[in-house]
Amino acid sequence: MSESPLARESYRGLSAAEFFYRNREIAGFSNPVRALYQTVRELVENSLDATELHGILPDLKVFIELGDKPDRVKVRVEDNGVGIPYDEIPNVFGRVFYGSKYVIKQSRGVFGLGIKMAVLYAQITTGTPIYVMSATPYSPVIAEYKLMIDISKNRPIILHERLRRKNRKWHGTIVELTIEGNWPQARRRVEEYIRRTAIITPYANIYFKSPDSELIFKRLTKVMPPPPKEAKPHPYGVDVEMLKMLIRSADKSLTLKDFISSTFEGVGEGIASNFMKWCKLNPYKKLSKLTLDDIVKLAKFMKEYPNWRRPRPLSLSPIGEDLLRRGIKEILGAEYVAAVTRKPSSYGGNPFVVEVALAWGGKIQPSDKPLLFRFANKIPLLYDEGADVSRKVIDNLDWSNYKVKFPAPLAVLVHVCSTKLPFKGVGKEAIADIPEIEKEISNALKECGRRLKAHITMVEKIHEKARRKVHFSKYIGEVARALSEITGLPSEKFADKLLKILSEELGEEVKVSEVH
Amino acid sequence: MSESPLARESYRGLSAAEFFYRNREIAGFSNPVRALYQTVRELVENSLDATELHGILPDLKVFIELGDKPDRVKVRVEDNGVGIPYDEIPNVFGRVFYGSKYVIKQSRGVFGLGIKMAVLYAQITTGTPIYVMSATPYSPVIAEYKLMIDISKNRPIILHERLRRKNRKWHGTIVELTIEGNWPQARRRVEEYIRRTAIITPYANIYFKSPDSELIFKRLTKVMPPPPKEAKPHPYGVDVEMLKMLIRSADKSLTLKDFISSTFEGVGEGIASNFMKWCKLNPYKKLSKLTLDDIVKLAKFMKEYPNWRRPRPLSLSPIGEDLLRRGIKEILGAEYVAAVTRKPSSYGGNPFVVEVALAWGGKIQPSDKPLLFRFANKIPLLYDEGADVSRKVIDNLDWSNYKVKFPAPLAVLVHVCSTKLPFKGVGKEAIADIPEIEKEISNALKECGRRLKAHITMVEKIHEKARRKVHFSKYIGEVARALSEITGLPSEKFADKLLKILSEELGEEVKVSEVH
Repeated sequence: MSESPLARESYRGLSAAEFFYRNREIAGFSNPVRALYQTVRELVENSLDATELHGILPDLKVFIELGDKPDRVKVRVEDNGVGIPYDEIPNVFGRVFYGSKYVIKQSRGVFGLGIKMAVLYAQITTGTPIYVMSATPYSPVIAEYKLMIDISKNRPIILHERLRRKNRKWHGTIVELTIEGNWPQARRRVEEYIRRTAIITPYANIYFKSPDSELIFKRLTKVMPPPPKEAKPHPYGVDVEMLKMLIRSADKSLTLKDFISSTFEGVGEGIASNFMKWCKLNPYKKLSKLTLDDIVKLAKFMKEYPNWRRPRPLSLSPIGEDLLRRGIKEILGAEYVAAVTRKPSSYGGNPFVVEVALAWGGKIQPSDKPLLFRFANKIPLLYDEGADVSRKVIDNLDWSNYKVKFPAPLAVLVHVCSTKLPFKGVGKEAIADIPEIEKEISNALKECGRRLKAHITMVEKIHEKARRKVHFSKYIGEVARALSEITGLPSEKFADKLLKILSEELGEEVKVSEVH
Repeated sequence: MSESPLARESYRGLSAAEFFYRNREIAGFSNPVRALYQTVRELVENSLDATELHGILPDLKVFIELGDKPDRVKVRVEDNGVGIPYDEIPNVFGRVFYGSKYVIKQSRGVFGLGIKMAVLYAQITTGTPIYVMSATPYSPVIAEYKLMIDISKNRPIILHERLRRKNRKWHGTIVELTIEGNWPQARRRVEEYIRRTAIITPYANIYFKSPDSELIFKRLTKVMPPPPKEAKPHPYGVDVEMLKMLIRSADKSLTLKDFISSTFEGVGEGIASNFMKWCKLNPYKKLSKLTLDDIVKLAKFMKEYPNWRRPRPLSLSPIGEDLLRRGIKEILGAEYVAAVTRKPSSYGGNPFVVEVALAWGGKIQPSDKPLLFRFANKIPLLYDEGADVSRKVIDNLDWSNYKVKFPAPLAVLVHVCSTKLPFKGVGKEAIADIPEIEKEISNALKECGRRLKAHITMVEKIHEKARRKVHFSKYIGEVARALSEITGLPSEKFADKLLKILSEELGEEVKVSEVH
């Protein structure tokens, strides 16, 4: 293996599966603790997407079992979702960069990568395949597979395949994986993840069983937010490459104007006409006649046109202020909660909604900076807080403007939902600092902050009144006795009157916990 | 676009280029500030790898120019490296998951991905190709290309190609890209990145020119650390998949024993024999006869065998305690620096070395927790500190054990080098918390901490002495006069004698800045 210093380097290509096999840390599979947590997450999030996004009330079962050796951990997740067509199962679990996630709507899964990483990790660490059982609602069969991944070819290896007739109405997916994991150390995070998931999906039944614990979350409501709809791309999010791809898959006999009015979010006949007039391209040119130069110009004009409609949030499914407030009160036992769901905004043509809640007092322990609870498309984020845009915004805010002096009993919940969350890594743990998102979080915090300030001010006043009342009360007996001696009337009468005056003056004592 | 709730989902595959095009944030291309920073980094790091790893003293030129619009930024980097063979240039710049980085040795580049991300980003944001000019040392030609990436096929598009005869001895690579960037906001980080790069590569000439600044770093030494050698895989890092790949590319007529003694790091005849005896597999079985079951067993035994040699650090190139100490003194103007280069260690068969320096006092401003300067394979890391293993270890250390009470004037430099750095993202900004690395950082910190404690103790003693000296000095005049009056002798004499006694008693006052 000796090298001459200026030897020609050797070059080669990798398959996508080999790339992620070599770099599993970037998907969160960095050690047996984190890998176990990540595996649970990926399976649970797929199950929630397979139910909730299709209007099915989720029934999830999650099992953690230890294997013959203590570091071999079996993870099994069962759901009642839409299932996967049997002929797609091998690719969905056995081919990196293959999936159903590549559409424009809010979902927990974004990369279509997590489950393949879990399969790779099982394969590398324990040499075992993934077991999958699945049926779609209208399929006559239930499919069972055992699968591994051919890493150098990025193709599924089918070790076992069985289709059997479906006798009952069951649909859903059951997945089972055995990985090298460290359950004792992962336990706290995994349970916390399940707990926070339950809080943000109160319409789900979640049953969780581990060697050390059993958690049962019964659904609190049967009302689900309407499932997000698939959106078209927004003109502001268009670039040359996207345009090329859209044109490639369109009917080539369409005119430019018809293509625009039929392809993009919030663009109808009228807006398309106005845009064509503004950009001065020929609206009747057929797609088949467009040159590369036309496409480059078109992309530029689409980015610059000032009169597109804002992206609509139909493809989004935020939690809502009410649920947010209830959620955080339940988690934290706070004295006061202010919650805000901001109006939809967008970055690069992707709609997003920011929701923020500030929780104050009660059982919250005072700390030197606000506690932070992060959610992204209803996924709880537990790792890498320091790299998240929310932490940055919170730490940069001047909290003294809102009468918060640290150490203070303050917690912040931030939920960002979008058709395209700008995660910093494929492990989905931190959101990047996109300026538009930063600004929305900041505005939401300020809005909540102002309410919190009003609350703190009110509480201060109440305390001040209460303090004065106590202060005066001490003297009432004495004053009443003095008046009694002077007038010869009974002192109780004076005391009552004085108390009445005092109450009128200072207002009724209001219990802090009733203030909202 | 209406959907029936239980509609069959549609599935499809993505090319690797399309995946990263859609998810550019995970490679650090999240906004025009960060993307500009990331582009500079990728080009500079490729240039340093192309020189230093081949024993060439680096001469780098970096130019930032603003285009016709203020948000169009041209980045140009020139180096005197080994160049790229002309027939490899299109794939190296135009195909995701293709490169020369997939070997086992320390290098700045690890994913072979950054430059393609920069090409994609230029293409998406400004519609312009990358310009490349390159020549290898022994090639008779200089090649010039303009390239883009066919995103849906993950293949280079050659817009311009020219080979011309090389008249002079030049070799190296020049790369030029025009991207959408925000120079005013990126400036501080880019310059800081260049500055820290210069500090950790004192044998490089780096010239940096931007619209607002010109930075010139002349090399301080012509002595370069020996270039890291390419290593074989270590048996502890083996898994079933790796074994399969190694066997696939080996001579099938080899016996198992010969395969093992020729393929793995630190394994010769003797160790291979001992291992074969221990694992009880047939050492004379030909590779062509191995079953999958044999391979699974072999992988398991290789992981469990207790007597492999530790991975050697020949494939690594740490900075060394001396350079580390000089570097940090120069950056920070510290009063005291303790530096440690730990012995090589390994995780999952990958050798790594941790280097730590603690800098104390001098010009370092006191802060509530230690300032942190992170380097990974000689790359300065400026973003995502909160997600980095070093921050975690530093924050968990009980600094009071080392007489450090915060706020304190303390800075920590951590350099991790490895043939495989477990970065958390392809943007290469934070190192994951691999337990072995965590432990090494912790031990290095403690080692430095003990030295710092000795220093602080010594300084305290000196100050105490100095304080006592000052204290006594005040009374010397008076005592001398009193003695003079009693004895009738001149008071100066007594004063001199008393001062002499004092100095002997308390030792010479030592200047703090001289203590090392």
